[in-house]
Amino acid sequence: MRDDETSVGNLKKAVREFIHKRDWEKFHNPKDLAESICIEAAELLQIFQWTKPKNGERIKSDPSSLKRIREELADVLLYCLSMANTLDLDLSDTVLNKIERNKKKYPADLYRGKAHLS
Amino acid sequence: MRDDETSVGNLKKAVREFIHKRDWEKFHNPKDLAESICIEAAELLQIFQWTKPKNGERIKSDPSSLKRIREELADVLLYCLSMANTLDLDLSDTVLNKIERNKKKYPADLYRGKAHLS
Amino acid sequence: MRDDETSVGNLKKAVREFIHKRDWEKFHNPKDLAESICIEAAELLQIFQWTKPKNGERIKSDPSSLKRIREELADVLLYCLSMANTLDLDLSDTVLNKIERNKKKYPADLYRGKAHLS
Amino acid sequence: MRDDETSVGNLKKAVREFIHKRDWEKFHNPKDLAESICIEAAELLQIFQWTKPKNGERIKSDPSSLKRIREELADVLLYCLSMANTLDLDLSDTVLNKIERNKKKYPADLYRGKAHLS
Repeated sequence: MRDDETSVGNLKKAVREFIHKRDWEKFHNPKDLAESICIEAAELLQIFQWTKPKNGERIKSDPSSLKRIREELADVLLYCLSMANTLDLDLSDTVLNKIERNKKKYPADLYRGKAHLS
Repeated sequence: MRDDETSVGNLKKAVREFIHKRDWEKFHNPKDLAESICIEAAELLQIFQWTKPKNGERIKSDPSSLKRIREELADVLLYCLSMANTLDLDLSDTVLNKIERNKKKYPADLYRGKAHLS
Repeated sequence: MRDDETSVGNLKKAVREFIHKRDWEKFHNPKDLAESICIEAAELLQIFQWTKPKNGERIKSDPSSLKRIREELADVLLYCLSMANTLDLDLSDTVLNKIERNKKKYPADLYRGKAHLS
Repeated sequence: MRDDETSVGNLKKAVREFIHKRDWEKFHNPKDLAESICIEAAELLQIFQWTKPKNGERIKSDPSSLKRIREELADVLLYCLSMANTLDLDLSDTVLNKIERNKKKYPADLYRGKAHLS
């Protein structure tokens, strides 16, 4: 998997260059990026509209859904990466820190098998 | 920055272990994850509700907004990473491929300075 | 039910007066209202996060969920009504027209019992 | 305007009949309706993606935007009305009550001209 060899910094750089070559920084302010993340997240959700929840294995055997999911998830991530570029955020630090805090908030032995609220 | 040394695979692994230790895979089906990405994206947007768009530099000088943005962006990403785990998706491949296709869809000399539609 | 005696115009008027007395028209431009509708819609969705879909009867017997749903649905509607005020839209006309078009798009005998896509 | 002669009950009835003739009640459970409200709200927001906020007057002079807004707002409302049908909610009561509570939460003389948070 490319995920094992690609740093988050590599992805941020690819997005930054793409945006810079088009002079799109002026559109990519944090508020408009947050809107775009929302819009793309809803397009991802739309793939599942009116369907019963299915586990990952079932979806993995449906190449057409999988392709659409990959497409929309990429859009969500592109805008998240652009937000990180605009605000000089260290996403790895942010994500790994959040997991550490969630470990304390949801101790494994207390929450095993029980839904958490976001 | 940790983003330069952290692979996307590292982040996926941290999320996978966190979920696994709590036996939460049963909640993290693709449809419910798409919902959660949507919910967290809207919480990110809420930080900007009723405000005028400001550029990144202005926001960077406002530590309290920055902290909230980091927090909500982490939540969006956690669920995206969990979706990738559930569906065995290679996010780096997906994101870099999408950028390649966007390069063709939005040639730099045609779209320089002009808004794109998602 | 008050719904049988209350015109859509009555609701629009109540929202318009509330906004006007606070001089909030300057915030309620169409783009920021669309954002707020999105934010409130996600808060409504959050009530159902990680739950299995339940039919209306089951939810109706859970007063605490019902209260939260009513609360968030009210917020979505308040912003929709404010959008209608800002743009002089006739919501009844818009909704009834859309139903007429949907009747043609989804003929009852073809779509009976089959999911529609939005 | 039809809004002055159409009760909320009239709109609920039109939606209920449309859904019933297609035997779609089984899809329209509260959770899936909340998802659909979210999806349509994001489509409404998409009309404004990457644009600067404009006041109502400016948008009203742009018939093509206005048409799209009407279209997406109708979809948001259709699902809100269907949610009310599924749960026997009195929307007028809910909306008018919420305005009453907001009047206390945001006293006009304290909040005049100042943004409120949702």
